[in-house]
Amino acid sequence: MKITKSSMSPFLCFSFFFLLQFPLISFSKTTPAGARFPSSLITPEKVSASAQNKLYRTKYFTQVLDHFNFYPKSYQTFQQRYLINDTFWGGAKNNAPIFVYTGNEGNIEWFAQNTGFLYETAPHFKSLVVFIEHRFYGKSIPYGGKKSVAYSNATTLGYLSSTQALADYASLIIDLKKNLSATDSPVVVFGGSYGGMLAAWFRLKYPHVTIGALASSSPILNFENITSPYSFNNIITQDFRSESENCYKVIKGSWEQIEDTADQPGGLELLRKSFKICKNYISADYLEDWLSTAYTYTAMTDYPTPSNFLSPLPAFPVKKMCEAIDDPTTGNDTFAKLYGAANVYYNYSGTVTCFDLDDNSDPHDLGGWSWQACTEMIMPTSGNNEDSIFPASDWDYKHRASACKSIFGIKPRPLWITTEFGGHDIERVLKRYGSNIIFFNGLRDPWSGGGVLKNISKSIVAIVAKEGAHHVDLRFKSSEDPEWLKDVRKQEIKIIAKWISQYYHDLAQLF
Amino acid sequence: MKITKSSMSPFLCFSFFFLLQFPLISFSKTTPAGARFPSSLITPEKVSASAQNKLYRTKYFTQVLDHFNFYPKSYQTFQQRYLINDTFWGGAKNNAPIFVYTGNEGNIEWFAQNTGFLYETAPHFKSLVVFIEHRFYGKSIPYGGKKSVAYSNATTLGYLSSTQALADYASLIIDLKKNLSATDSPVVVFGGSYGGMLAAWFRLKYPHVTIGALASSSPILNFENITSPYSFNNIITQDFRSESENCYKVIKGSWEQIEDTADQPGGLELLRKSFKICKNYISADYLEDWLSTAYTYTAMTDYPTPSNFLSPLPAFPVKKMCEAIDDPTTGNDTFAKLYGAANVYYNYSGTVTCFDLDDNSDPHDLGGWSWQACTEMIMPTSGNNEDSIFPASDWDYKHRASACKSIFGIKPRPLWITTEFGGHDIERVLKRYGSNIIFFNGLRDPWSGGGVLKNISKSIVAIVAKEGAHHVDLRFKSSEDPEWLKDVRKQEIKIIAKWISQYYHDLAQLF
Repeated sequence: MKITKSSMSPFLCFSFFFLLQFPLISFSKTTPAGARFPSSLITPEKVSASAQNKLYRTKYFTQVLDHFNFYPKSYQTFQQRYLINDTFWGGAKNNAPIFVYTGNEGNIEWFAQNTGFLYETAPHFKSLVVFIEHRFYGKSIPYGGKKSVAYSNATTLGYLSSTQALADYASLIIDLKKNLSATDSPVVVFGGSYGGMLAAWFRLKYPHVTIGALASSSPILNFENITSPYSFNNIITQDFRSESENCYKVIKGSWEQIEDTADQPGGLELLRKSFKICKNYISADYLEDWLSTAYTYTAMTDYPTPSNFLSPLPAFPVKKMCEAIDDPTTGNDTFAKLYGAANVYYNYSGTVTCFDLDDNSDPHDLGGWSWQACTEMIMPTSGNNEDSIFPASDWDYKHRASACKSIFGIKPRPLWITTEFGGHDIERVLKRYGSNIIFFNGLRDPWSGGGVLKNISKSIVAIVAKEGAHHVDLRFKSSEDPEWLKDVRKQEIKIIAKWISQYYHDLAQLF
Repeated sequence: MKITKSSMSPFLCFSFFFLLQFPLISFSKTTPAGARFPSSLITPEKVSASAQNKLYRTKYFTQVLDHFNFYPKSYQTFQQRYLINDTFWGGAKNNAPIFVYTGNEGNIEWFAQNTGFLYETAPHFKSLVVFIEHRFYGKSIPYGGKKSVAYSNATTLGYLSSTQALADYASLIIDLKKNLSATDSPVVVFGGSYGGMLAAWFRLKYPHVTIGALASSSPILNFENITSPYSFNNIITQDFRSESENCYKVIKGSWEQIEDTADQPGGLELLRKSFKICKNYISADYLEDWLSTAYTYTAMTDYPTPSNFLSPLPAFPVKKMCEAIDDPTTGNDTFAKLYGAANVYYNYSGTVTCFDLDDNSDPHDLGGWSWQACTEMIMPTSGNNEDSIFPASDWDYKHRASACKSIFGIKPRPLWITTEFGGHDIERVLKRYGSNIIFFNGLRDPWSGGGVLKNISKSIVAIVAKEGAHHVDLRFKSSEDPEWLKDVRKQEIKIIAKWISQYYHDLAQLF
């Protein structure tokens, strides 16, 4: 049987970190089972430990619910969380810079703990470091902080949008600078993934608030028809294929084998046993999603050093997965090979006794993405061509729209992001417009297919690392970092230093 | 008695064209009397005549109610009107340009009939000409076109905002280009007054939709504390003073005389007789507002040729007013002098038998401005220093806020415009950012005090005409146009031609 992804599983390829392959039913509030962020296996750094390390202090800002409307309901406010570190700040008197991370779709502490670049460059730049949490995530929940209210339906969720988030950042930064008497301090924004999109868009929309943006792994071109809907999975394919042709072939051939096995009497139990799945729900779809998730996130976080962002992983985890698949001791046992690969992602610590396909816990508070993916963040990424490591399929907008209709009762607006932020013909549009944006992309990152990979102008530049994965440049440095990564960061620091120096020059000229 | 403006009249200095001096009571829905746009005395060009002239065809676009929110109510749509003239268009195949007027706070036909620049340059540029009506004005009314619903309260009016309007323009232009198969046609936006602000902001926020903006008489710096709240009335003062010191002194001294007369027995009737006020309501406040309005609008439209924008006026109407005031035949009769001056503005055709101070008709559909002036368009302009032609006073934000509270039940957001669009330190901010904006200002225009009067960069430039009034450059040309005005238009055409040529160059390079 020829298996296509859509026949295989009704999943939606939605997000950066969350629910990448997403069974429809997991959307339903009545049947929450199905989402399977492998959260129970993740060991995020403890907040208390970070607080002890004095990585940041936590503050709150009273934010308006709707910036673009003026009916009475819009005047409601909520408490927006931000994290601040002034250890190295040169102070308002010196107009010392402020580095702001424009938070993405999750608990801001998670990003703050995985974005060492801001802290580590702070002594050099004498910069104040601020991480701002995105509305509706983490602790920045409208309606008195009540998530049950905020997430209850489309009317309350309506205020969760990227443009509102950008206006939040502008309002908070302007107010913060006033309070610090630092109105002349240059602000540089940083972000990775969706946060990187927000950083780039923030520079484009709010040049009076930020002098420049480092947008890391931000697929701002992954909308409408700008880039290929196959690119995401093609890059995953390429990542595995680059390690070993056999590895690629085994995975590519495995989907049919899993389906066939599941269809046989006792087949599901065989699969359960082969993959050490716990004694609750199993199906071919669920298992395939679980495996796809492992391949996808491993490709995204194929860092050259050990990491613990999505899951504890060794250095070069794709290579490790392929080593498991290519392991001669497993002979022709495909399931044993896949199990070995899945273990790299789901059980690197080696402590798991069984895997729960039904696990849908959400330790990073990423749940709001489902709403964003149903409204404006319509990123065609789930296509698979014939060469794909996944079964061939086409990006199916109708499928997304119908899911969103049934879950939230609303229609996506797939043209909105390009209407508001552009994207088409970006080279021509920005060639003579805008300035001071760095787009970093690592070509091992599946999201890099939707990224800006070419310099647009002298000061809107692309830094591309052949070996890099998802916003690797922003991670805390490690003694094992390869030279190319050190070099990427050096380039970024040099460019940011130039922006700041130009800013001081302009400031001095005007007074 | 020393008279201050605030003791004199509780008026609010709000808008560009509408209700500039605005008695509080006129806001009240229960007492509509009081607004006094001198509409019955205006003879706007007939729409039917324009249609016969084939100035434009009228079309409608289905527009979404809220671009920045995604709750079900936001998905409502309304019919947005736009006017189109393709007589001279070079066509989609040639990527011929599209000139778009970003409509301001009124019926778009009024602007289309007073913005000859777009039609008159169309043959040269082979451009398509489009005028887009601003939501909530003219015929572009949400809620099924029912103004009574749209304007009924703060909840329905909530969707009237500048950011929503800009998103409307982006959505409409993108869709129009698609429908015309003209996605590669460069779009240049134009606007005067608030429409000019929108044009400039549109270039700053939607560079992927427009290649450049001509923002005429757009006081984008008239917010918060960027420019002096005295500048507006200072320029009016200067306009009159430049014609004659006596003219200035007579007007300056008249307010006390009016008040004193009104306080005497039979004084109001004397005033009524002196100014030929009709046999309905009169008070010192109303009379003073009526006179202030005449001085203000005459200063705004102090064009070098006869015009009929706000009212039928001779060339150099401020000079004509001062001639009436300086007329030796009126001797020491201040009221006869003021009456002569008011006649220039209110009765140039000479047909009026009495003036109705209570007239609040609104032939240009400008009524929505009261809402905008109570939410985001908080432009501190009503201050008068000691030298002012008006009684000394300070800009009073609290007064505005309290009026808005009582009328609409909402609080203004005076910091919003600068948060969203900037304005502070505009030279520094835009020096290395953005491109292709012309800011035109005539220094006889009271609004020029809040305009951009200095070049910011090579392609964000200021054109300043010492003798110019409110968006005079955009008006239909006349055989009597002075050389400086012809020169202004020539400069503008040259710059726009350069933008377009650069665009074609960039387009060719990329293919």
